[in-house]
Amino acid sequence: MSRLDSFIRRLEAQRACLDNAAQLIAALPGNVLEFGLGNGRTYDHLRDRLRGRDIYVFERQVAAHPDCIPPADRLFLGDFLDALPKAIQQLGRETALANMDIGTGDEAASQRLAAQMAPLVLQLLKPGAVLISDQPVASAELEALNLPAGIKPGRYFLHRKR
Amino acid sequence: MSRLDSFIRRLEAQRACLDNAAQLIAALPGNVLEFGLGNGRTYDHLRDRLRGRDIYVFERQVAAHPDCIPPADRLFLGDFLDALPKAIQQLGRETALANMDIGTGDEAASQRLAAQMAPLVLQLLKPGAVLISDQPVASAELEALNLPAGIKPGRYFLHRKR
Repeated sequence: MSRLDSFIRRLEAQRACLDNAAQLIAALPGNVLEFGLGNGRTYDHLRDRLRGRDIYVFERQVAAHPDCIPPADRLFLGDFLDALPKAIQQLGRETALANMDIGTGDEAASQRLAAQMAPLVLQLLKPGAVLISDQPVASAELEALNLPAGIKPGRYFLHRKR
Repeated sequence: MSRLDSFIRRLEAQRACLDNAAQLIAALPGNVLEFGLGNGRTYDHLRDRLRGRDIYVFERQVAAHPDCIPPADRLFLGDFLDALPKAIQQLGRETALANMDIGTGDEAASQRLAAQMAPLVLQLLKPGAVLISDQPVASAELEALNLPAGIKPGRYFLHRKR
C-alpha cells in the first residue's frame, strides 16, 4: 500500500467516524467541540453534517482556509489544557459530540496529551454524548462503541459518555 | 459537500488516474516523470504501482517525507522550465508516463505554466506515452483519453502521445 493509499484510507476512516457520530447524536441536543482546526476540513465537515449546532473549536494558532475559520466567540485559542478549564466555565455540560483528532508524529506525546485532556473533556460531555479520538482514552465514564465497518482497530476510538 | 468530502474525492480521482495510466503503459517500456514532489505521496504511489521503472522527479525545493525522497541522480532540482531542457538532453525521448499535477491556487498562472511546459514535456514522451495533467493541455501530438469512471470532467486530463 502506497502512502497515497494509506492517506486516503485515513481520511475515509475519519469521515466515517464523523458521519457515524453525527448519526449517533441526532436525537441528543448539544454543542460540538473540535480540537485542532488545522486547514479546517474537518470543521467544515462537522458544520455540513451537523447544521444548526454550535461548534466550538480549540486551536493553538489559526491557519485554516478563510472559509473555515469559526466566529471569534466559538474559538478557544491557545493550548488545549489551558483552554479547557475556560470552556468548562463557559459551556458547562452541554456538549453532545467532541472530536479529539490530536495526534502528531510523536506517539508518546500524543497519548500523554489525550490522557491529560480526557478528564477535562469529560466534564463538558452530556450523558449520551459521543467522543471521537485518534488516541486511546480510558475512563469508567466512557463506554466503547463499535467503529464503522472497514476501519482498522486502533486508528480511531469511539466512546459514549455514560 | 464538505471540504473533507471534496478533498477525498480529489485524492481518489488522482489515484484512479495514476492507476489507469500505469495500466495503459504496462506494455510500453520507459521511464516516468513526476512534476512536483510535495510530500512525496504521489511519488510513492508511482513507485509502488510501477516497480522497476526509473522515476525522475522535478521539484523546486525538496520538502518530502524522508522515505519519499528520490535518489539524487533521479532529481531535477529548480524551476520546471529551467530543468526541462536539461532533462531533454539527459533522457532523450524515453518517457512512458508523465504526471503534471502542477496546479496551485492561482488558476491562470497554473494554466500558463502548463502551456509553457507542454511543448518541452512532449519532447520527452515516446509514441504511446501517457500524460496526466491537472491543467488542460492541447497539442496535435496528443490524443485525449477517457477519464476513469466517476471523475468529474475537467478535474484531470489524460492524453496519449501519438
